[in-house]
Amino acid sequence: MSSPVMSARRLAGILGNLDGTGPAYAEITDRIRVAAMDGRLADGTRLPSERELAAALGVSRTTTSRAYADLREAGLIASRRGSGSTVTVPLEASPASTLLGTHSDPDTLAFTYSAPIGPPGMARAFERAIAKLPGLLATSGYLPDGLPALRELLADYYRQRGLPTDPDQIIVTNGAMGAISLLSRTLLSPGDRVLVEGSSYPHAHDSIIAAGGRLTALPVGNGSPWDVEAMAAALKASRHTLAYLICDFHNPTAAVMTGPEREAWAGHLRRRGVTAVVDESMHEVNLDGIDLPPSLAHFDPSTVLIGSSSKPFWGGLRVGWVRAPKPLVVTLVQARMIADLGTSAFDQVVFAELLSDGGQTAAAGRAALRQGRDHLLGELAEHLPEIEAPCPAGGLSLWVTLPGHFSTRLCAAAERRKLLLTPGPRFFSLGGRAGERHLRIPYAHSSEHLSEAVQRLRLAYDDVQAGRTGTRRTDSPTIDLIA
Amino acid sequence: MSSPVMSARRLAGILGNLDGTGPAYAEITDRIRVAAMDGRLADGTRLPSERELAAALGVSRTTTSRAYADLREAGLIASRRGSGSTVTVPLEASPASTLLGTHSDPDTLAFTYSAPIGPPGMARAFERAIAKLPGLLATSGYLPDGLPALRELLADYYRQRGLPTDPDQIIVTNGAMGAISLLSRTLLSPGDRVLVEGSSYPHAHDSIIAAGGRLTALPVGNGSPWDVEAMAAALKASRHTLAYLICDFHNPTAAVMTGPEREAWAGHLRRRGVTAVVDESMHEVNLDGIDLPPSLAHFDPSTVLIGSSSKPFWGGLRVGWVRAPKPLVVTLVQARMIADLGTSAFDQVVFAELLSDGGQTAAAGRAALRQGRDHLLGELAEHLPEIEAPCPAGGLSLWVTLPGHFSTRLCAAAERRKLLLTPGPRFFSLGGRAGERHLRIPYAHSSEHLSEAVQRLRLAYDDVQAGRTGTRRTDSPTIDLIA
Repeated sequence: MSSPVMSARRLAGILGNLDGTGPAYAEITDRIRVAAMDGRLADGTRLPSERELAAALGVSRTTTSRAYADLREAGLIASRRGSGSTVTVPLEASPASTLLGTHSDPDTLAFTYSAPIGPPGMARAFERAIAKLPGLLATSGYLPDGLPALRELLADYYRQRGLPTDPDQIIVTNGAMGAISLLSRTLLSPGDRVLVEGSSYPHAHDSIIAAGGRLTALPVGNGSPWDVEAMAAALKASRHTLAYLICDFHNPTAAVMTGPEREAWAGHLRRRGVTAVVDESMHEVNLDGIDLPPSLAHFDPSTVLIGSSSKPFWGGLRVGWVRAPKPLVVTLVQARMIADLGTSAFDQVVFAELLSDGGQTAAAGRAALRQGRDHLLGELAEHLPEIEAPCPAGGLSLWVTLPGHFSTRLCAAAERRKLLLTPGPRFFSLGGRAGERHLRIPYAHSSEHLSEAVQRLRLAYDDVQAGRTGTRRTDSPTIDLIA
Repeated sequence: MSSPVMSARRLAGILGNLDGTGPAYAEITDRIRVAAMDGRLADGTRLPSERELAAALGVSRTTTSRAYADLREAGLIASRRGSGSTVTVPLEASPASTLLGTHSDPDTLAFTYSAPIGPPGMARAFERAIAKLPGLLATSGYLPDGLPALRELLADYYRQRGLPTDPDQIIVTNGAMGAISLLSRTLLSPGDRVLVEGSSYPHAHDSIIAAGGRLTALPVGNGSPWDVEAMAAALKASRHTLAYLICDFHNPTAAVMTGPEREAWAGHLRRRGVTAVVDESMHEVNLDGIDLPPSLAHFDPSTVLIGSSSKPFWGGLRVGWVRAPKPLVVTLVQARMIADLGTSAFDQVVFAELLSDGGQTAAAGRAALRQGRDHLLGELAEHLPEIEAPCPAGGLSLWVTLPGHFSTRLCAAAERRKLLLTPGPRFFSLGGRAGERHLRIPYAHSSEHLSEAVQRLRLAYDDVQAGRTGTRRTDSPTIDLIA
């Protein structure tokens, strides 16, 4: 039994007025994609004919025909003679899908990482970048320090944030993870101590450890993750080389370091000769537009900052960067020669376009994330009231509190319900019981998948309550991808 | 005084017939770019008007207008009212340009790395990839093991080479360097011994050392870099974990390991439990289409292979890969989580397009490299007959022999002539005098730059002969980028 065909007028209403900033077919393609992903066009929706949609939008038939063809090519609509075109919402492409053994389980939901799908406007940035291609292809494409135009835009970005910055202070890396890894390998010698938050982004801590660093984790309490007294005591007790911190929308707690805390931290670190590495990947994912205190670099110019295009824009853009004093940037550029030689040239052009559009795409990305956040909060409040889920002002995931210490068991039960989550303790570098009361739930997913995930989590929760926890599936290797 | 305007007919002849596989404006843009880079359109050439070119090519004025606009945007032509459009051949964008201190020296030629500019057809692959964008943007873009479609194409590629391969045996990395780095960090523990060729790609050896490996370098003689007896003796003398080899168009010598050598190496390595890591980055840069012996993996299935898109296609595509037994691929995917999380999603789509075009773009790339190689050989024969420059059947650079041990001095003199070269000893992991007789000269440059480089090298050579060597410039940090 097939659903009725959506009227062209209704679809035109969903898509909104075209803004004429690019080819009309590309805009239509992009808007249908986004509507399919955010749930406004449900899976199986039958679309009006190309002719009807063209009339409703006031564009040529060629335009809608090209848009449908591109959507077909992308696997977002299926067209069959006689029954028209039908929306097919793809399951979010599971990362490491074949390795996760999800080959035979195409409906597993991967909620271990939080990265947005490409927001509206993203496709247009790619189109604009294509226009820069001839100049780019006339070079070897090797950019070990980064695309000059992008380094300038990033320097501008910091200047606008009140941090005078020269383009030579920027090195473009393979995502923020590439930056963390490069800094760890460059700044640490085996045995060097690194001060870190008690809970944090696990791959960052793993990267520090792989480079020979020894972690000093701050205590995890109910207050701030950045206890100034504990920090001062730790620095006094032993010599530290680095501090790795996530001050803005801390991952996973979404906490924001206060201005006075920043000043105190910067002062102590500087006096002890400890380099602060501040991961600001989430800085631009300021969903509620709150006033963030100045960067730690404002209080200590030797601070090293890390940024990312994946969190505010799209995970597929593997572009991150480091802002550091110039001599360190020279060292980092040399150090990367034995790691990757450079970052994708075209991704850098696309990111430069995104930084030059007046903030339009970033705003659309935040709007989509806000919608996901609010949808997830609503679903949890309705279906899992046992869980305490505060609303974060930024970032890409909720940090919820369970009514008991069973995060690992809950995640194991969820996995059997085909929902992959990261157990709370994974975010605590010292492990222990504290993490068992927490769970990180990313909301950078379509409404449909968020609802489905909460349903599965509800079932998993009941499994745990009923003692039906069982063991984790062991029929396939599990990849620990957290983002 | 300005040059005369090139006739539309002449330009149309240079550009050739459009093949209609993409939008005509894009094809015209691409062909003018390539002709400007390979010297068929000299710097300063005045192009015919859009109208005249449209008539000569039998396309619309809109088409040539768009092509000229894109070329202008890319900085490849300059248009001025009254005097029409003029070709402006860009100096190859120097990598790490600001760090190399070439800010004030915009005409420094960087010959330390060898990567082709984008060959004809490259722009079209990007355009085709854009059509896949809607589907890609509907995902998070995180692809820690690689784009499924690309992994399948790479598995096919190996099958065509007689090596049955499952897509799960492939992990896509950030270039071949990313693969070497990932393998070193994953397979080596501090102190592990790695058997290597006496001369090789320096960043690979540096990466092995950074991961704690200890190099056993084979002797450098006049014969093969892969002396079987020396290898057997080294393996007998101490336990080795890995062997890192470049069997096809070895970097820097361009030597090819013979079939019997491969068989002997594979046998010895397997018996001693040593994992062979074979860097096949140059395999597809087979300029003369010679018959290459089967891959080492043919003789030992545990062999790990590395491949690259940068060498046969374009350095700006940061896509490499590893082919390995499945369990190792799972380990590598997990290990990369603390390095970069994945490779640019769009670059992978572009590369997949390049692998699906029937070899057309790869052939165009090889043709451009052949032209560069032959041009460089001609220039050297004419202007620097003192240098012995054998013609390599593949790869991207000449490996020349000097009539004395002065490679380092020659490179220092060349640097003062604004030509950056890598001194021969840099390619010898044990250093020593042998490298002083050699120089690697990349030919992946435009004819214009190759001629200019030989002129500067001639001057530098004379400087060395006259004892005018001086010291290296120390006014700026020098980045050691070799590729």
